[in-house]
Amino acid sequence: MTPLRIVVVGTGAVGGYYGALLARAGHDVQFLARSDHEHLLRHGLRVESVRGDFSLPRVAAHADPAAVRPAELALVALKTTANAALPALLPRVLAPGGAAVLLQNGLGEEERVAAIPGVGAVLAGLAFVCVTKVGPGHVRHRDYGAVRLAAYAPGAAAGVTPVMERLGAALEGAGVPVTLEPDWLAARWRKLVWNVPYNGLSVLLRADTGALMASPPVCALVAATMREVTAASAAEGRPIADEFVEEMLALTRGMRPYLPSMRLDFDAGRPLELPAMYAVPTARARAAGAPMVRVEALLAELELLVAARDAERGAAPEPRPQ
Amino acid sequence: MTPLRIVVVGTGAVGGYYGALLARAGHDVQFLARSDHEHLLRHGLRVESVRGDFSLPRVAAHADPAAVRPAELALVALKTTANAALPALLPRVLAPGGAAVLLQNGLGEEERVAAIPGVGAVLAGLAFVCVTKVGPGHVRHRDYGAVRLAAYAPGAAAGVTPVMERLGAALEGAGVPVTLEPDWLAARWRKLVWNVPYNGLSVLLRADTGALMASPPVCALVAATMREVTAASAAEGRPIADEFVEEMLALTRGMRPYLPSMRLDFDAGRPLELPAMYAVPTARARAAGAPMVRVEALLAELELLVAARDAERGAAPEPRPQ
Repeated sequence: MTPLRIVVVGTGAVGGYYGALLARAGHDVQFLARSDHEHLLRHGLRVESVRGDFSLPRVAAHADPAAVRPAELALVALKTTANAALPALLPRVLAPGGAAVLLQNGLGEEERVAAIPGVGAVLAGLAFVCVTKVGPGHVRHRDYGAVRLAAYAPGAAAGVTPVMERLGAALEGAGVPVTLEPDWLAARWRKLVWNVPYNGLSVLLRADTGALMASPPVCALVAATMREVTAASAAEGRPIADEFVEEMLALTRGMRPYLPSMRLDFDAGRPLELPAMYAVPTARARAAGAPMVRVEALLAELELLVAARDAERGAAPEPRPQ
Repeated sequence: MTPLRIVVVGTGAVGGYYGALLARAGHDVQFLARSDHEHLLRHGLRVESVRGDFSLPRVAAHADPAAVRPAELALVALKTTANAALPALLPRVLAPGGAAVLLQNGLGEEERVAAIPGVGAVLAGLAFVCVTKVGPGHVRHRDYGAVRLAAYAPGAAAGVTPVMERLGAALEGAGVPVTLEPDWLAARWRKLVWNVPYNGLSVLLRADTGALMASPPVCALVAATMREVTAASAAEGRPIADEFVEEMLALTRGMRPYLPSMRLDFDAGRPLELPAMYAVPTARARAAGAPMVRVEALLAELELLVAARDAERGAAPEPRPQ
């Protein structure tokens, strides 16, 4: 296949991992990175992975979006808390009509990115992967790795589009298991089933997934929280079978103990993805007539904890580096 | 009035405070205390109070229940977590047919104490007081102080009984505002309206009442949690007007920032009153068809936090001293 010209926006754990795989597979990948830019230019990217370690000694890295050769695809792997940068950024790194792939968590971001002039298409990208950044230009892939892609369309399923197929084929060629989803909203809700309980509770209870699952009452709370999410999804016309909840619980029980990204953000003093992961989903659920009361409680509690953390640090929260 | 012969079981903050007031008013008060017994005998009791400090240089104190002169009233001011001691203890300190007054939080304890042979009557005692123990034989009364008394009867309101009137008069004579309640179950549920949200959240969020009320989302969560409690109370045939919730919120906003007893227990490594304050109420609510899902979530979270705390201390939780 013809190589894709891709720009990775946000070279953290997820962006670094998938960008490195695509670059290794021969695609034209540019990495946009603020803090790691110098390191990437000098030392390239290093991936430690359960599927085999590898290094890319030379990668195309930029700190300045203006230096990027316009790409047909932008792989957005920022935290959603940094998405306010996208309206200024995407038009500078995308070729006219190019597509933005939001390899992010939560709900509500595709709508906003689709409204940015010059963005030709938006894909929801859902990464099912345990990967952490262990240093500049250095990521550790601990488990899983599949990606689901879905084309965004306002209010409806968009089916499988050509750009989805092209990116899907590129990722598969790079060794990534890919599923093409016809319905972005269904895909987003399904991902929230795992994300909502584990991210918030790992912060609230200072516990990793192993400690959460080792507590029978918390296990039951996780399951009840997941069922609030599936009920909200059903209320938005996207029913999720109850077996999916059982599957997520079993999967987590089988995982090596893991600290979800929100906990890492909390510990590092970074803003949490509360809007996309909690505030938008709870508001949509309530509007759809299926309020998620346990999730609302979790959101309120997390908001207090973040405020207390930031007050203790005695400083405004620092913006997260790309 | 004839002086009452009273034994205070558990000379902590609450027992020390009310016992001292009753002793000062001329009643025959014996204090049962394990760890403070020596100190009480040597130095008596000291009360620092917003209503005026006072000391009782000589008090009757015992470590051994067998040394107590059998009393007509036992003022039980242990934590409910120590109530397993009562079946062996109460028959030794009460005169035949004497009454036990449970000056405790939560639900479900009166039933069990009423089944102890030799206990003639059981009263629910509800203390609305901010009082802490600051050292051996030394309590600090920071605010409030009213007591509600209600006679226990299985499944029904027992009305106002002679022993309630007698103790009520003694407390009033000692300067304590007293309300005699005809319905113990209604009184217990009303007290839970405040206790359930503030006790648990102060542990979960490491925050005092001031910090909880300063967070608008947590305020809303507190109110929603209180309404779960009033709905459960209503389902047990004890409706609580919504104005009561507003009143409790306003009262707490007006209070000096306060650490509820559960948070003090948590920080001191003591067992928490989870059974009486959370497990029994949530089970009764669910059985009555009004499950308190936010309270159930809080209970699960607290259980994990206690287990983690105890695992960290690397030891079995120490039994709470009387």
